[in-house]
Amino acid sequence: MGPTPRSTVQRLPERGRYDAPTIHAILDEAYICTVAFVVEGSPIAIPTIHARIDDTLYLHGSNVSRMLSTLAGGVECCVTATVLDGLVLARSVFHSSMNYRSVVLFGRAQPVTDRDEKVRAMRAVTEHVLPGRWDEVRQPNAKEIAGTQIVSITIDDASAKIRTGAPVDEEGDLVLDIWSGVVPLTLMPGAPIADRPELETPGSVRAVTTTPRGH
Amino acid sequence: MGPTPRSTVQRLPERGRYDAPTIHAILDEAYICTVAFVVEGSPIAIPTIHARIDDTLYLHGSNVSRMLSTLAGGVECCVTATVLDGLVLARSVFHSSMNYRSVVLFGRAQPVTDRDEKVRAMRAVTEHVLPGRWDEVRQPNAKEIAGTQIVSITIDDASAKIRTGAPVDEEGDLVLDIWSGVVPLTLMPGAPIADRPELETPGSVRAVTTTPRGH
Repeated sequence: MGPTPRSTVQRLPERGRYDAPTIHAILDEAYICTVAFVVEGSPIAIPTIHARIDDTLYLHGSNVSRMLSTLAGGVECCVTATVLDGLVLARSVFHSSMNYRSVVLFGRAQPVTDRDEKVRAMRAVTEHVLPGRWDEVRQPNAKEIAGTQIVSITIDDASAKIRTGAPVDEEGDLVLDIWSGVVPLTLMPGAPIADRPELETPGSVRAVTTTPRGH
Repeated sequence: MGPTPRSTVQRLPERGRYDAPTIHAILDEAYICTVAFVVEGSPIAIPTIHARIDDTLYLHGSNVSRMLSTLAGGVECCVTATVLDGLVLARSVFHSSMNYRSVVLFGRAQPVTDRDEKVRAMRAVTEHVLPGRWDEVRQPNAKEIAGTQIVSITIDDASAKIRTGAPVDEEGDLVLDIWSGVVPLTLMPGAPIADRPELETPGSVRAVTTTPRGH
């Protein structure tokens, strides 16, 4: 895997990363991605849940999803996923920013028609949203598998862009008595709202509410 | 403002919302958006910070930003912003989902060249990331204003899509002793990391760390 000109980070290239472990970790941590594609010359972008197995990204949805049917036709797409890590509060407006980890991935989707691969992808999506959940719930039946459309995109033409750490102020601003620093951000799970509180909270839910994703 | 065919929610249309207050509130709460556009027939999508004033969305960046220069040329773009609200954990794989609020907005960007409008947009971006911050920090100087590129997009061809509440299980699954429910998600600010801890924590930072955005 290596970046092509289109996946090479242009602005602030020192923030660009191209290694698979970095790209995969961001895709795994981000709950959702945004999928962009072109219809009759115009851009369309839609947020959706994704999942990854090795170097394959899966998107799923209903058999009647316009987005998935379009993607399954093999058109080019661009998938982005972003994790926000903090507010970067400089002494000046100009150097204020955010800490983030993002991925931009270019490719063409392929329809997943093999039943076993479909089920593996459905499992990956379930486990992406909440690790351990697949084994706790009712598995998809034949009708549900048939009603689910899945496409795969190979993760090879991709880049990550990452900003971490403190604000970088102008030398001349450092003497100003203006508070600067970072406010970390975490996508924090709250107390579960159970449909039947008498049932024991399952391991998957206990795990995510104890340790927020990425921590 | 009203949806056109392209901004009308296709899948699960009961989740679609088209009123400005709903669309504006989601854009205001989401720290970042993803901007999709077409270059030589191919889709490109890039995450970026945005801000809103009335029915105008602003994007900003460096004067040498490829994305902003492309947008400023008046090409069509599609902006999406998503707030994640929770994991929806049904009794079955098939009905598991997420709670979310998203906006999809179509338009064409216009370059902002008027100095006063540029400064108003820079203020909006600063206040979007952290309300109250503009008045606490050094304002942009002439060189910084000149080095910043800003485009505006009118928010009129847009839709929101919202899922809230508990999982919706199959009737036949309700008898199963499988835990179901929702795990709420909140983008939670952590303890500020100050560059000079001896300075008093400013009001903007105290406010966001006391009350997470959207709460």
